[in-house]
Amino acid sequence: MSDIYEPPKVWSFDSENGGEFASINRPTAGAREERKLPIGDHPFQLYSLATPNGVKVTTMFEELLELGIKDAEYDAYLINIGEGDQFGSDFVDINPNSKIPALYDKDADIKIFESGSILVYLAEKFGKFLPTEPAKRTEVFNWLFWQMGSAPYLGGGFGHFYAYAPEKFKYPIDRFAMETKRQLDVLDKQLAKSQFIAGDEYSIADMAIFPWYGALVKGKIYDAAEFLSVHEYKNVIRWSDELLKRPAILRGRLVNRTWGDEDQQLKERHSSNDFEGLKLDY
Amino acid sequence: MSDIYEPPKVWSFDSENGGEFASINRPTAGAREERKLPIGDHPFQLYSLATPNGVKVTTMFEELLELGIKDAEYDAYLINIGEGDQFGSDFVDINPNSKIPALYDKDADIKIFESGSILVYLAEKFGKFLPTEPAKRTEVFNWLFWQMGSAPYLGGGFGHFYAYAPEKFKYPIDRFAMETKRQLDVLDKQLAKSQFIAGDEYSIADMAIFPWYGALVKGKIYDAAEFLSVHEYKNVIRWSDELLKRPAILRGRLVNRTWGDEDQQLKERHSSNDFEGLKLDY
Repeated sequence: MSDIYEPPKVWSFDSENGGEFASINRPTAGAREERKLPIGDHPFQLYSLATPNGVKVTTMFEELLELGIKDAEYDAYLINIGEGDQFGSDFVDINPNSKIPALYDKDADIKIFESGSILVYLAEKFGKFLPTEPAKRTEVFNWLFWQMGSAPYLGGGFGHFYAYAPEKFKYPIDRFAMETKRQLDVLDKQLAKSQFIAGDEYSIADMAIFPWYGALVKGKIYDAAEFLSVHEYKNVIRWSDELLKRPAILRGRLVNRTWGDEDQQLKERHSSNDFEGLKLDY
Repeated sequence: MSDIYEPPKVWSFDSENGGEFASINRPTAGAREERKLPIGDHPFQLYSLATPNGVKVTTMFEELLELGIKDAEYDAYLINIGEGDQFGSDFVDINPNSKIPALYDKDADIKIFESGSILVYLAEKFGKFLPTEPAKRTEVFNWLFWQMGSAPYLGGGFGHFYAYAPEKFKYPIDRFAMETKRQLDVLDKQLAKSQFIAGDEYSIADMAIFPWYGALVKGKIYDAAEFLSVHEYKNVIRWSDELLKRPAILRGRLVNRTWGDEDQQLKERHSSNDFEGLKLDY
């Protein structure tokens, strides 16, 4: 059956359309019901899920704690996006865009949303992983924003049409596979020149890029390693293997995780002790 | 003819695929030829095109100049993406991602790419349009990153499939129309609460969001105002109309413009006098 058609004058919502998550997505924003969020004892309250965007932030918290910064202690609560938790009133009050991750800084009474904004907030608050020297700082921002503007083509484009859409449509898969490979090549050429993405220092740019593109070349998302010939991106693989030696990265990806092996899921995180007994390999 | 298919084991590039810009897009990155960029007299050298991402930056420069900050003078050179200027060696040396806008700060010898990174760079350099007070600063970053992560669904998703793809495919148009309307509703609810997107102060978040979503509700991109029922987003329209009173916004959108009326195109910009004789209405 053909998917080529003549669009109507005015688009209207058909809840039958949408593939996986179709029952959740709507063309409107805002809270769908009154719902409280739990609040724990730590300075930071994170409401998230261990998707790549969620993992960026748990990685950052674990890196800060790895440095011995106790003020970076956090409670991480699960937001089950398949069940619509992101449309509860308390969540929407933090993030009107209804996407994970969302963070509340209790002491400062500041609400932070968008993973990139959260990374910048924590980096500036604790003076870590985002240099203040202009040239180095700019390079981190260049690549952090690169990640934010690029990953929608990987996740909302390639991942959706290759893995989640109700049928395999050739044109969008070709379009987004090409762009994803181009992005991997951008990273590969950059990582041929420097140890980390923004130079010789590990930064929030690495933390933002790894959960998407590192996971992709390591075959962890969309089961697309062979399809995209990810073995071609040798520098991305080299960089990924180096990052995977960092305990914070191995811990961060388990937080708010509800899939995979049971011993790799930490549905809520309230203490460094919560990782005891979990398997930290990738 | 059906577009539903069985993907191969390994994706391979077919230059026939791709719709508009098909001759330009490839699955690889990097320079395709040696090509010098011109360099002018001003501190900032901008290489760009008046797409929404380009206009964010020219708006920021014009806003800074409007404040009388002479150190924000800039030369803006045209990058014709339809002719592949973004793959020249000098351009790739500034932006390895081969997208406009790209900025070179001559005095600091710093290269900046990604429109969001450029906005932050200029805001921090001149101390304007990005508060330093944590709560206000965070809200600007929240919405700036929101724009970066959201607009790919508008531009690379909805815009591509509705306006540029070789045929109209129902599933992706439905998917991205729904998401675009959801994003407009997010903005509309936010702008019901505050004058500007991040509160009561005009900021780089407004400059980033207006060229995409303001242009959309004013019927200036993709000819999709009726299709998306943009009249529903009354607060976005109210905000757009207010921003359109700002001379910097009206000037910025003409810089590096190669389409529309002749008297609304300033292909290169080297001086505030260059706008003389041009029509500043929207």
